[in-house]
Amino acid sequence: MPHIELKEGLPGIVGLLAFSPDTAQPLLALAEVLLRGPNSLTSAEREIIAAHVSYRNDCAFCQLSHSAAAAAHLGGKHDLVSHAKVNPEAAEISDKLKALLNIAGKVQKSGQQVTPEDVARARQHEATDKEIHDTVLIAAAFCMFNRYVDGLATIAPDDPDAYAAMAGLIVENGYVAAFA
Amino acid sequence: MPHIELKEGLPGIVGLLAFSPDTAQPLLALAEVLLRGPNSLTSAEREIIAAHVSYRNDCAFCQLSHSAAAAAHLGGKHDLVSHAKVNPEAAEISDKLKALLNIAGKVQKSGQQVTPEDVARARQHEATDKEIHDTVLIAAAFCMFNRYVDGLATIAPDDPDAYAAMAGLIVENGYVAAFA
Repeated sequence: MPHIELKEGLPGIVGLLAFSPDTAQPLLALAEVLLRGPNSLTSAEREIIAAHVSYRNDCAFCQLSHSAAAAAHLGGKHDLVSHAKVNPEAAEISDKLKALLNIAGKVQKSGQQVTPEDVARARQHEATDKEIHDTVLIAAAFCMFNRYVDGLATIAPDDPDAYAAMAGLIVENGYVAAFA
Repeated sequence: MPHIELKEGLPGIVGLLAFSPDTAQPLLALAEVLLRGPNSLTSAEREIIAAHVSYRNDCAFCQLSHSAAAAAHLGGKHDLVSHAKVNPEAAEISDKLKALLNIAGKVQKSGQQVTPEDVARARQHEATDKEIHDTVLIAAAFCMFNRYVDGLATIAPDDPDAYAAMAGLIVENGYVAAFA
């Protein structure tokens, strides 16, 4: 049961966005620019970073919804997304994305864990300053979203179809339009 | 040395906001509504929550700048802020703020650490649903800001006057106007 009174039938962050429209606006704008804004990283790659961090934070709602979004961007490659989320180094993804997921995993623990060697590895695979910046900020932002969703004990649906439906809305319309 | 190329002389998050104006906008809007928007918690109380979480995450820039902002809101009570940041239970603050800082400290570790008992304690001291919601989101947001600032290895000035000057700007003009 959620720690505060939320409208029934609105799972995870959806109920929180409805509870607090003043904070929903910048939160949705941040998700939109980080995950869907113009970028040399694809939206699928950025959603995989979000899913990986949410997996490491053990946030059921966020890891399932962002895995579903990544898979939707990739035409339904659920297994690929699942591998990348759980064990990036062994997944069929680019060396650049592996290096960025390594940085994201460090950020999940603490910003101070990111070493010059982690950054050098990403650069070796042609990651730009913007891509490194965005990876750190996506990972940091999901350390926020995960804590927001779980710190208020929101409900995560068991039914995978619920996440597929949300992912469809997000991929079609974006975060701001889907939830505002 | 920062992990990416930032303009010199812009410490902590300030250099990152200048590097990435697209993400700066929602980040500053979020800080503004969380720490300065209309609220039954004072801005000083909310800045103390931010400083406590930043202290627990060992983020020098954030804990010093938000301590300075809290003290500026309180007419210079640096010792009170410092006590509340480091050891809330022993500080001269209200029982309600102690209970909210207890929740914030749990969120700093993981959202899942917040128990119904933690929430009941806050309610016993008349915390509202909105105050509990805002405490969780402020704590979660600083888990993001701290990781953003440290994950890119930004510079934290040693000089306390640098933080006092920033705090003055923030208290006077707000986050959006001070850094946009």
